[in-house]
Amino acid sequence: MEKFEEYSVAEFFKKNKQMLGFSGKIRSLTTIVHEYITNSVDACEENGILPEIEVNITEAGEERYKVRVRDNGPGITKENLGKAFGMMLAGTKFHRYVQQRGQQGIGAAGCTMYAVITTGQPVHVISGNGKKRIECNIGIDFKENKPVITNLKEEASGFRGIIVEGEFGEVKYGKGEYSVDEYLKRTALANPHISMFFKDPAGGEIIISRATENLPRKAPEVKPHPLGLSAHDLLERAKATEYTKLSSFLQNEFSRVSLNRIKELAGFVSVDLDKNPKKMEWKEAVELIKGFKKIKWIAPATDSVVPIGKEQIERSLRNVLDPEYIHVTERSPKIYRGGVPFIVEVGIGYGGSIKSSGKIMRFANRTPLLFDSGGDGITQTLKTIDWRRYGIKNFDAEPVTVLVNIASVHIPYTTAGKQSIAPEKEITDEIKNAVMEAGRSMGRYLSGRIREKEKDAKRKLLLRYVKQLSGDIGKLAGESPEELEVRLKNLVEERY
Amino acid sequence: MEKFEEYSVAEFFKKNKQMLGFSGKIRSLTTIVHEYITNSVDACEENGILPEIEVNITEAGEERYKVRVRDNGPGITKENLGKAFGMMLAGTKFHRYVQQRGQQGIGAAGCTMYAVITTGQPVHVISGNGKKRIECNIGIDFKENKPVITNLKEEASGFRGIIVEGEFGEVKYGKGEYSVDEYLKRTALANPHISMFFKDPAGGEIIISRATENLPRKAPEVKPHPLGLSAHDLLERAKATEYTKLSSFLQNEFSRVSLNRIKELAGFVSVDLDKNPKKMEWKEAVELIKGFKKIKWIAPATDSVVPIGKEQIERSLRNVLDPEYIHVTERSPKIYRGGVPFIVEVGIGYGGSIKSSGKIMRFANRTPLLFDSGGDGITQTLKTIDWRRYGIKNFDAEPVTVLVNIASVHIPYTTAGKQSIAPEKEITDEIKNAVMEAGRSMGRYLSGRIREKEKDAKRKLLLRYVKQLSGDIGKLAGESPEELEVRLKNLVEERY
Repeated sequence: MEKFEEYSVAEFFKKNKQMLGFSGKIRSLTTIVHEYITNSVDACEENGILPEIEVNITEAGEERYKVRVRDNGPGITKENLGKAFGMMLAGTKFHRYVQQRGQQGIGAAGCTMYAVITTGQPVHVISGNGKKRIECNIGIDFKENKPVITNLKEEASGFRGIIVEGEFGEVKYGKGEYSVDEYLKRTALANPHISMFFKDPAGGEIIISRATENLPRKAPEVKPHPLGLSAHDLLERAKATEYTKLSSFLQNEFSRVSLNRIKELAGFVSVDLDKNPKKMEWKEAVELIKGFKKIKWIAPATDSVVPIGKEQIERSLRNVLDPEYIHVTERSPKIYRGGVPFIVEVGIGYGGSIKSSGKIMRFANRTPLLFDSGGDGITQTLKTIDWRRYGIKNFDAEPVTVLVNIASVHIPYTTAGKQSIAPEKEITDEIKNAVMEAGRSMGRYLSGRIREKEKDAKRKLLLRYVKQLSGDIGKLAGESPEELEVRLKNLVEERY
Repeated sequence: MEKFEEYSVAEFFKKNKQMLGFSGKIRSLTTIVHEYITNSVDACEENGILPEIEVNITEAGEERYKVRVRDNGPGITKENLGKAFGMMLAGTKFHRYVQQRGQQGIGAAGCTMYAVITTGQPVHVISGNGKKRIECNIGIDFKENKPVITNLKEEASGFRGIIVEGEFGEVKYGKGEYSVDEYLKRTALANPHISMFFKDPAGGEIIISRATENLPRKAPEVKPHPLGLSAHDLLERAKATEYTKLSSFLQNEFSRVSLNRIKELAGFVSVDLDKNPKKMEWKEAVELIKGFKKIKWIAPATDSVVPIGKEQIERSLRNVLDPEYIHVTERSPKIYRGGVPFIVEVGIGYGGSIKSSGKIMRFANRTPLLFDSGGDGITQTLKTIDWRRYGIKNFDAEPVTVLVNIASVHIPYTTAGKQSIAPEKEITDEIKNAVMEAGRSMGRYLSGRIREKEKDAKRKLLLRYVKQLSGDIGKLAGESPEELEVRLKNLVEERY
């Protein structure tokens, strides 16, 4: 008969490492850099620190590299260090309703996993909070999904930040679309407040100084909105609450629920709102969810969503791509799944230094998405755009770049590798509208440019005949050809 | 500061249900049917039972359906029932080195999860082994990733098989490319030994009788091959082994390792092969792995891989698609990642009843892959094929269908939803070669057909002039026009 043994999530991802982005040698290296930077930047921003990230990659053998990432963040406590780097689904990010780059609590532990299975080496971590410095090696006990910490040292030190260093096999440093270089370049594009220093294995250096001293507005942690809830969510929260009445539970644990809304709700449902939430049953939860839908709620607080911003994107596009024309949308937040706010930002650059092959740059919460464009909602939506409407005859062969950023408390990634966004209808609709808005603007510019060109051509053509014409007419009419030429020239210049 | 709480894999997938294939209402319904059928057929085949599967879908409200799947398999013990339907990563399938449709131990528990979060209802399961019948409701405790079993009943009964019935919200029954109908049709195509009965919500019935009484050869469980191992794999197995000498550990727990190979290995490595495997260190494991690579091994036993088979695919294509022309490849097993055997099978159908729009049908271990074609290795590879070489001017507009099946002990899925295969180079190379082989054969047929057509056109043209010509020449030469006509006709028929 069959044998059932429980196995851990660490073993699952060890066997299915491609789900974490560890497939392909170049991609695997980029994944490592991506995971570390994501965590570093999240930690810096949450603590109001302008991020400074240093990435060093050195060759350590055949298809084997040492990766070292250093940040200037707040560091991490001894209790949490092992969990952050050596335990999958250790849930600091998981339960929080706040916009972050990382959201699954797998990233850094996934890198440790990859180091261990490809080189047998734990990663080496140094963390400092400005007073104390902790240093240790961190591996993973796969069976238990627990960190294995060795050589722990503590000492007084003014160092602040985290340095993580690991040796990874089955990786390759390369250039091109999926490279670390491209990843860093795009990170800079969407995060002008980050300073980055990168030293590649050949000794090449990339230094990106921040283009702004302004940190993005800090995304507040928010309570869920009643319209974004399922009956199951409501029941689970009701079981865990400390409030003893349904009405106070609803008012305190969800956003936009006021006493007036509770009164309104009472008119729509037969559920006793004085009841202990712990005793709520499924059908009562279903009734409440149905009741919620009848109320005209104030939309969820959209300050939980922090876009890059029109001005910032324009500046970045100009700095990095130097196009002839730029349009960046500035749209209001929208809601998906009923209660999860998100913002779509689209920037289009055309001409100038942009090469003649259409390019899509995808971002989620400012983090570049380089891989898995196949099933991705942004890519799919952009394929449905009829670019000819906007003056682009062949997207693939024209100097156009489209940047799309989605900002949200919860990005619906289709894989744990976080490189592909589920094509949820509300999101893809909004992407389409945003791209069309930017497209129309570009279209007007391009058709204006065409008209300008046509006018210009006519003007030049006419001017070429002005001299001849003034002479001929002058003779016929007995006027001064010189005077006539000036008048005709003025006429042409005026009209074209 | 940050709070780290461990959270369970069930909570992870609840929040990221799109990773299990629960995204989109039509797709979610197909995912449910897919997971149940996969498990049923695996269980039947492993026990030498010709599968009979009954699927019933009935409407139960707005975007709410009841799904009932019944099989004639061996049933499942009371101890394992809860784990199979109410616990994620309960590992019966995980550690086994045997070709199966399911391989991750998430499927059925994922369906229970979806039932619970969309309707609050557990699934209802009946299991019988021909003597005893167990019946219960199974839900999930998400915090603990443990099954919640209620209303357990046991009684003597002759029933054999499993009936699982669940009510699911946020699903939709529809027709088309991603529908349950299409899924079942493709399942039949790759599994002519399965009988299926399907009743859709509108009362429509699909009955598919098995086309063969022969079960596919049973895939044996195999030991891993030394070339497919990483140092990490080797160390993990060494830690768990009961053998006390490295040499006997290697001989007994891996395939193709004989005493002679051990002697050979001793010449390449400095590791003491009498050593206790539990004491092996990383660098010794690395040395052994390097040593393995110097030995000329017998390739891994490829009987662990069971293809559908040329004859079976031909018959299925003929029955289901009724094309004018069919070619099915019959290729030898190949190896990826050094030691994992796999077989690629490609069938091409052209013309006849096939509609004029190129179609790709993907399968992994005979299971249809309907979704996530974007990042999928099969789809990507087929895009690189220059079909014009094989007489297809525009793949999308010609009557051609390409079936690709990959059979392996371990399919490298990119998502837990198991709908997309990682583009590992060894696999995509073999897909390309197989498709090109089938393509060349089709190309020869099509160019033959074109030559035939051209010849035929010429023949018809010439025959049209024969009568006129015989008359004219007869007059000129004074011969009998009738006789001349016969001779000329014969000449034309002979040449064309």
